[in-house]
Amino acid sequence: MGRPHPLNYALQNRSRFVAELKDFIRFPTVSAQPEHAGDLKRCAKWLAEHLRWIGLKNVRVIPTAGHPIVYADWLQKPALPTVLIYGHYDVQPPDPLDEWHSPPFDPVVLGEQLYGRGASDDKGQLFTHIKALEAYLTTAGVIPVNVRCIFEGEEEIGSPNLTAFLRRNKKALNANVAVMSDTRMLAPDRPALTYAMRGALSVEVEIQGAAQDLHSGNYGGAIHNPLQALCEMVASLHNSEGRIMIPGFYERVRQWSDDERMLMARSGPSDENILGDATAKAGWGEPGYTLYERTTIRPALTINGITGGYQGPGGKAVIPARAAVKLNFRLVPDQDPLEIDKLFRKHIARLTPNTVTSEVRTSLTAQPALIDRTHPALRAAAVAYVAGFGRAPAFLRSGGSIPIVNSIQEIFGIPTVLMGFALPDDRMHAPNEKFHLPNFYHGIATSIHFLNEITHTFTRTDRALEERERLYDY
Amino acid sequence: MGRPHPLNYALQNRSRFVAELKDFIRFPTVSAQPEHAGDLKRCAKWLAEHLRWIGLKNVRVIPTAGHPIVYADWLQKPALPTVLIYGHYDVQPPDPLDEWHSPPFDPVVLGEQLYGRGASDDKGQLFTHIKALEAYLTTAGVIPVNVRCIFEGEEEIGSPNLTAFLRRNKKALNANVAVMSDTRMLAPDRPALTYAMRGALSVEVEIQGAAQDLHSGNYGGAIHNPLQALCEMVASLHNSEGRIMIPGFYERVRQWSDDERMLMARSGPSDENILGDATAKAGWGEPGYTLYERTTIRPALTINGITGGYQGPGGKAVIPARAAVKLNFRLVPDQDPLEIDKLFRKHIARLTPNTVTSEVRTSLTAQPALIDRTHPALRAAAVAYVAGFGRAPAFLRSGGSIPIVNSIQEIFGIPTVLMGFALPDDRMHAPNEKFHLPNFYHGIATSIHFLNEITHTFTRTDRALEERERLYDY
Repeated sequence: MGRPHPLNYALQNRSRFVAELKDFIRFPTVSAQPEHAGDLKRCAKWLAEHLRWIGLKNVRVIPTAGHPIVYADWLQKPALPTVLIYGHYDVQPPDPLDEWHSPPFDPVVLGEQLYGRGASDDKGQLFTHIKALEAYLTTAGVIPVNVRCIFEGEEEIGSPNLTAFLRRNKKALNANVAVMSDTRMLAPDRPALTYAMRGALSVEVEIQGAAQDLHSGNYGGAIHNPLQALCEMVASLHNSEGRIMIPGFYERVRQWSDDERMLMARSGPSDENILGDATAKAGWGEPGYTLYERTTIRPALTINGITGGYQGPGGKAVIPARAAVKLNFRLVPDQDPLEIDKLFRKHIARLTPNTVTSEVRTSLTAQPALIDRTHPALRAAAVAYVAGFGRAPAFLRSGGSIPIVNSIQEIFGIPTVLMGFALPDDRMHAPNEKFHLPNFYHGIATSIHFLNEITHTFTRTDRALEERERLYDY
Repeated sequence: MGRPHPLNYALQNRSRFVAELKDFIRFPTVSAQPEHAGDLKRCAKWLAEHLRWIGLKNVRVIPTAGHPIVYADWLQKPALPTVLIYGHYDVQPPDPLDEWHSPPFDPVVLGEQLYGRGASDDKGQLFTHIKALEAYLTTAGVIPVNVRCIFEGEEEIGSPNLTAFLRRNKKALNANVAVMSDTRMLAPDRPALTYAMRGALSVEVEIQGAAQDLHSGNYGGAIHNPLQALCEMVASLHNSEGRIMIPGFYERVRQWSDDERMLMARSGPSDENILGDATAKAGWGEPGYTLYERTTIRPALTINGITGGYQGPGGKAVIPARAAVKLNFRLVPDQDPLEIDKLFRKHIARLTPNTVTSEVRTSLTAQPALIDRTHPALRAAAVAYVAGFGRAPAFLRSGGSIPIVNSIQEIFGIPTVLMGFALPDDRMHAPNEKFHLPNFYHGIATSIHFLNEITHTFTRTDRALEERERLYDY
């Protein structure tokens, strides 16, 4: 057709795209840490300007009770379907800082890897779609489909404000399908579509002993150390096999058929793959399930951090007054985080010995989500992956949580295409997080293909067929 | 006799003494933290200059493999006994810093209390003896007895270099009795002589899981969290009654007679006193023993600190790669810290599940110590207390440890008078450590009386009687 091809455009502009992504990563957008609120604001503004610059319309930075939402759209094909592109520009805390080989917010490219906090989770993955839209708008001047972009700054703290925003604007934000890239592939040459996410519940338990720190010589043996009480309580939350010992915890856990489990065994990672990706020497957990099952169709409880007493060099002979633990549940259908929160609080009250007091604070809840993997939108995504990566995607369950997936399903009644471009060894949430740059490039191509392919899925009317510009054939 | 009285001199110079003590406290002499090594050196130099200034001889700052020892003497009465005055100018870490009402190394006086790290442990108590010596040297020009001062900078890290120093200089440092003030009274009007100290063993256990931090969603349920393994191991170190579950741990624990325990019950603090001093609502620990017994004639194991995972605000969905715990044993006769260290290491190796690895590091050992409470030197101290505080001291066991007490007994074969001036609520090792200034003043008076009184105890020859100047009668 003589028009410059968006795929070629993306190919020619790779190094600029990486430079822009580095600018994006430089904002230390740690949503959990209040001192970074200004950084999130500045990043949202930068992102909005970028969306305006590539040619999207109605670009807005929408304040919330927490960090702002960035909105933009392109709705020039009224008879064609609308794709809701979701992503998040906030990141996990970079701690422990001393384990980074390069500063977390000063991204560097080494070989094919781009290092930096948020490189893959989620700035790099989010950026694939922005660059796909730019490729269309710059070359063709149009996108094959309508799009709405919603990029939030609170995913890593459980999206406390996004659901209410979507609910309030349910009609104005209507769409036919959502797409987001915030999940993983199996390996660089093994793309994957995720069709299940676990839910989440994060809590902090604080144990208070004496009103003040005590000399461990003068009082050791006569006062219950809150750190010890905490260890005793935490240790009792699992039995020796790794099952969670909170009464009622497993009651609503859905049992899957042998067929489903066989399909998982065929398409999912092996125990060996998972241990290799985790750099762990041995598996652990509930007997009777593979490691892939333990991280997807079974719930889990992990200890994210313990604080208490002296942590400096050498020793300090002290019985601390307080100790605290941060815990993170991953939940599966049909568990409800709010119900589990109640069961947990009741259990902690029961476990707390009368020598100390305990307090539970809930910091995050996210519902588990299941996507119908036979939905035509997922077929369109599979076609796009074949074009972008040269291989059909595996259908995967994820152990992670994206709070908004369930909300999108509930509020809009539409499926979400979880089109992941991250790799198992990208160290999401850990020091030295990275993004495999070939996946960035193939991800942009896959998004370009997907935005074209999805028009087939939803386009049925004559008017739509007329309006639709099938830009390319594959 | 017309001579100005040392007690009056001490009375008249109180405010200057407090100002000097504040200067002494301003050195952040945290022996456990390598970054403070320079502060310890500067403080040792300041202390040596102060000792020279009050008129002591042979003042020296003696370097060691760690922090320096400050030595000074006054040996002008060859036929009279020699008192070894021990103290330490190092302090515990001030953490947690945010719980201090005033900066730990910027001492302030509020009412009758002097606040600052080291105010009572041990700079303030050590200073009582320096000011007593100054009172004698300035008013009478002589001290009633010979003295050697040995002030170390490593007590809070287990005196790793002092014992070897004493052993090397055994002959040159000969003395008849040691005195130190690094222990507690029962209350402001209830002085106490301590005749037993517990031994100590401090260890750090580090647990390593995967080679890197992991996303708690992607791996939760399939990888043994080192923080959880640590909680499980730590929780299993005590049974539900508070007994320590390390095989062989209690084997050498000395059993005391009913008579001794009755004497302890009469002279020691009640459970109620101990809970009040500890600001704790309930006791805890080994059944069959009072809280006083649990903290003195029974060994204890306390958790001083746990580090692992994310400790900032909000949450971080991570399975940390590593976790560590600092543990502190308090040991009693006839337990040997080195033997307990071996038993502990064997036990930890046994407890470590094959999903993680563990490493034990030992940071401090101190032998338990017992003083013969019928020794005439303790009687002299009792007389001095009556004169200084207006009340005879109780004979107490301490739950704390002063590593050098046992070494003094072993190397020199002499007793140590543990003449404490700190109060149970002085918050030694905790934030807002303080020294009760009336105890500082009465402590100086008690030291003045003691240095005079001790001449009676050891002075038997005619030559000595002639040489001795009994400066005052009480």
